[in-house]
Amino acid sequence: MSLSWELQAQKAKDILQQSIPKQWLLPAHKLPSADLKNVEDFPRKSGLLSARELSITEMSAATLVQNMGAGKLTAEEVVVAFLKRAVLGHQLLNFATEFLTDRAIGRAKELDEYYRRTGKLVGPLHGVPISVKEHVGVKGRTCNAGYVAWVNDIATEDALIIQCLEKAGAVFHVRTNQPQSLMHLCCSNNLTGTTLNPYNRTLSAGGSSGGEGASTGFKCAPLGIGTDIGGSIRCPAAFCGSYGFRPTALRNPLSGAKAPKEGHESIRGVIGPLASQSVEDLDIFQQAILDQEPWDIETSLVPVPWKRAKPTKNMTVAIMWDDGVVRPHPPVTRALNHAKSKLQAAGIKVIDWEPYKHKHGWDIISAMYFPDGALSQRKLIAQTGEPTLPLTAWAFDYSSPTPLTMAESWNLNVQRDIYRDEYHALMKSRGVDFILCPAYAGVASVLGESHYWNYTAVWNILDQPAVVFPSGLSVDAQLDQLTSEHKTYKPRDEVDQREWSKYTGPERYEGAPIALQLVGKHFKDEETLAAGALVDGILKGGAEQSTTTTRSML
Amino acid sequence: MSLSWELQAQKAKDILQQSIPKQWLLPAHKLPSADLKNVEDFPRKSGLLSARELSITEMSAATLVQNMGAGKLTAEEVVVAFLKRAVLGHQLLNFATEFLTDRAIGRAKELDEYYRRTGKLVGPLHGVPISVKEHVGVKGRTCNAGYVAWVNDIATEDALIIQCLEKAGAVFHVRTNQPQSLMHLCCSNNLTGTTLNPYNRTLSAGGSSGGEGASTGFKCAPLGIGTDIGGSIRCPAAFCGSYGFRPTALRNPLSGAKAPKEGHESIRGVIGPLASQSVEDLDIFQQAILDQEPWDIETSLVPVPWKRAKPTKNMTVAIMWDDGVVRPHPPVTRALNHAKSKLQAAGIKVIDWEPYKHKHGWDIISAMYFPDGALSQRKLIAQTGEPTLPLTAWAFDYSSPTPLTMAESWNLNVQRDIYRDEYHALMKSRGVDFILCPAYAGVASVLGESHYWNYTAVWNILDQPAVVFPSGLSVDAQLDQLTSEHKTYKPRDEVDQREWSKYTGPERYEGAPIALQLVGKHFKDEETLAAGALVDGILKGGAEQSTTTTRSML
Repeated sequence: MSLSWELQAQKAKDILQQSIPKQWLLPAHKLPSADLKNVEDFPRKSGLLSARELSITEMSAATLVQNMGAGKLTAEEVVVAFLKRAVLGHQLLNFATEFLTDRAIGRAKELDEYYRRTGKLVGPLHGVPISVKEHVGVKGRTCNAGYVAWVNDIATEDALIIQCLEKAGAVFHVRTNQPQSLMHLCCSNNLTGTTLNPYNRTLSAGGSSGGEGASTGFKCAPLGIGTDIGGSIRCPAAFCGSYGFRPTALRNPLSGAKAPKEGHESIRGVIGPLASQSVEDLDIFQQAILDQEPWDIETSLVPVPWKRAKPTKNMTVAIMWDDGVVRPHPPVTRALNHAKSKLQAAGIKVIDWEPYKHKHGWDIISAMYFPDGALSQRKLIAQTGEPTLPLTAWAFDYSSPTPLTMAESWNLNVQRDIYRDEYHALMKSRGVDFILCPAYAGVASVLGESHYWNYTAVWNILDQPAVVFPSGLSVDAQLDQLTSEHKTYKPRDEVDQREWSKYTGPERYEGAPIALQLVGKHFKDEETLAAGALVDGILKGGAEQSTTTTRSML
Repeated sequence: MSLSWELQAQKAKDILQQSIPKQWLLPAHKLPSADLKNVEDFPRKSGLLSARELSITEMSAATLVQNMGAGKLTAEEVVVAFLKRAVLGHQLLNFATEFLTDRAIGRAKELDEYYRRTGKLVGPLHGVPISVKEHVGVKGRTCNAGYVAWVNDIATEDALIIQCLEKAGAVFHVRTNQPQSLMHLCCSNNLTGTTLNPYNRTLSAGGSSGGEGASTGFKCAPLGIGTDIGGSIRCPAAFCGSYGFRPTALRNPLSGAKAPKEGHESIRGVIGPLASQSVEDLDIFQQAILDQEPWDIETSLVPVPWKRAKPTKNMTVAIMWDDGVVRPHPPVTRALNHAKSKLQAAGIKVIDWEPYKHKHGWDIISAMYFPDGALSQRKLIAQTGEPTLPLTAWAFDYSSPTPLTMAESWNLNVQRDIYRDEYHALMKSRGVDFILCPAYAGVASVLGESHYWNYTAVWNILDQPAVVFPSGLSVDAQLDQLTSEHKTYKPRDEVDQREWSKYTGPERYEGAPIALQLVGKHFKDEETLAAGALVDGILKGGAEQSTTTTRSML
């Protein structure tokens, strides 16, 4: 007889509990009250981290490596600092699924030993702690991908991306949470529960890489590994005030990331980085992987080396104020206006972007998500009887209730390619290099409310690289009040109405950072990150300031 | 009421007949008797072509361009020479579906005018006549792809590859035949009939680009455009003594090539060149296209520029004597032995290649050809009631009789990727750069007998680039007699028995050239052609001799 789903799910909870390094747990009475929304600054108040540790955890990966290369930091003290912050973050946000303390400290000691012996760094990510979404397999560890049915499945080897990053010097210290089915833009499952937003715990950390959103947003890791088939890297980064990058498909190695419907190729998930400090770190992550030519192992990847792209102000940025389907919430529009002024002041050509058939793009991609009518997923859920969570049902409902025929599925592929070619041709004919747009209709979603995916998903169907970064602004109690224009806005349809009505005023999203998304042309990943770093720097400081304001030598 | 299929098919015959430039038709009494098998040398005897025209039609594309650049040839006289040879070839081999005389001569005149005015060539293919398989669309012309049902379909624009080649200076003068369904390794349909082999008219010209095999084999064009999903470029080239190249998928633009099940992506057809004279011409063709960055229009292509690869003797070639499934016919084995001696004498490292699960590869790809149980194709055939040809039925029978489920189809994709990764890893671990192997189990097939595809198809499922070239040997009445070892060979199974029993002695394949196939690693297209040119040169002459023995200035 099979166990009840609760008993099976307990296994995941046990793994998590047993893995927490108890010496760094804060007793309950030292934690903030559960109704404290914003805990982003709690590390400073907690007393858990020393000033040096606080400083370490607020460095970018680039700065950490620089300091380790100069002998000013050891890999071990770095990973210990991030582990402590991660334990605290987990107590506040429930973002971890498993700590990898022994592996991480063991690896850090090896790196330190190597450095002591040779005076050299192992690679471009020497000693950089990286958190990793649970469904990206870690050798010898369970890999459930958000399904109770898979709670006992064990990965036989590290995912290829983990192997690459480890060769480059990275240290893996914590695995992170994801929603049931991997298909929410929130982060809740029946295994280890719901992950919260560090800036406002009534908000979601985003999803599906919500654990990574919280991890990088709370600075539990300078870099994290997420996956994205509709916004799953970018939404968590946006919601949590960190950085996230969706590369063009088939650049980063996906082997060893577990999900149902393996072999489904009409719409491809990608694996990519989140970062707590800078766009530059996203680039370092990409470079570290692609310099290893993973296509020589995973042959479905395209053999396009990672270029070193230089940012240039000689570019045209088109701002998409609205996708023509769902009107963005007032704070998002404010951030776009802010960006427009800053970019223009910096001498960058800014024009408006007229969106092109985004609803059509959504119709294609949403039909592709579960071409078998989500049978593979429903079966997995039914196998244990775990409840189907509301946002899981929401996602399944996007697709056809019955499996598509081969012919229907092929026709969608044709439509997809036409749409891609048309969009690309349009960017060329309009002379546009990058599109600056919202990362989400709002600044974040209230827990359970992330329904509209298409500010991110449209770039998945178009397979265009997109980077998300904080605008430098947060929701403001005064500036983001509803105006009379807002109050009299007549939504275009029910979807627009549903999303618009979620914004009743700044109170609901108090404290939330406002992110933006910069989208490049297909395969212009390097240029997109270079431009993203430039735009990010302009928004936060001035045209000449780089994004690395947090970089400092000890 | 709809017309009978015969009346509908008549349209294709009419288009063909009306397009033939009558002034160059040879009267019936000047043609060789229908039972003359080998007509390869008939152009010399026909009296139709002048000595200069014969010389022109025996030049490589490279030499033609060189001569036009030096003002020694005009584009117009070049295309007229090839048109005359093509008309003759068509009378003997039935390879054309439509002549494009006016377009070709008009374009040639433009090129000549441009050259007169500027002293420059338009591009790397200035004035080079190229024949094109019928299902690759030509603006304003019908495009039936071998189906009577499509006899009235008109292409609204030139296929992207035609646009690219035309920009590079190419001239399109004749469209060529293909089998019903495009899925025979022979070339027979209910529209314009059966294409014959120039070296032996009881043999097939191969397929599905059989018209291109005959066109390049008879030197009706120095270059041709074929398509290949299981050997459809390479078999015709092999059977007809010409050169053919299957590039890695998603390098050459496919837009505008018509076929049923558009959007089916598990196994991708590719478009690529055949050449009458040299491997070098295949490279020039590829370079001319990819230098135009077609991925900036057809965004599903991979943005990998065409490198200039230099041939090097510092390589390891592994010879696959047998795929472990079907034993090659004696002449093919003789050619492999010949190649081994020549390569070794030239100082190239040659080892044996142990094939890896080729039957498994075939099981995957054959299941992928018609994942809908060939419903799309059967419907098209039923639409007019045209008879299903025996080799069409043969191909359909490879696949599951009922449509695959999504899950089955996805599982095949997973199996495909695992097989690719394993094969690639094996080549690396064995230190092998290229595999030299048969292009087909025999030298060619007797009409209607091309049943076994997997000497070519396995490289489609593995997505490895492969070039076919003549070994320099032909079937020999003495050397290719069955020995006692041959006579006592016990075939492994029914398939092996079926193929082996087709070789009753050299008489059946009299006159046929013997081709070989060189296979490179995934995406190593340029290196494969460079190595192919080197090997071709070594086989035909000596180590130092290039392949361009037919190149000469006028």
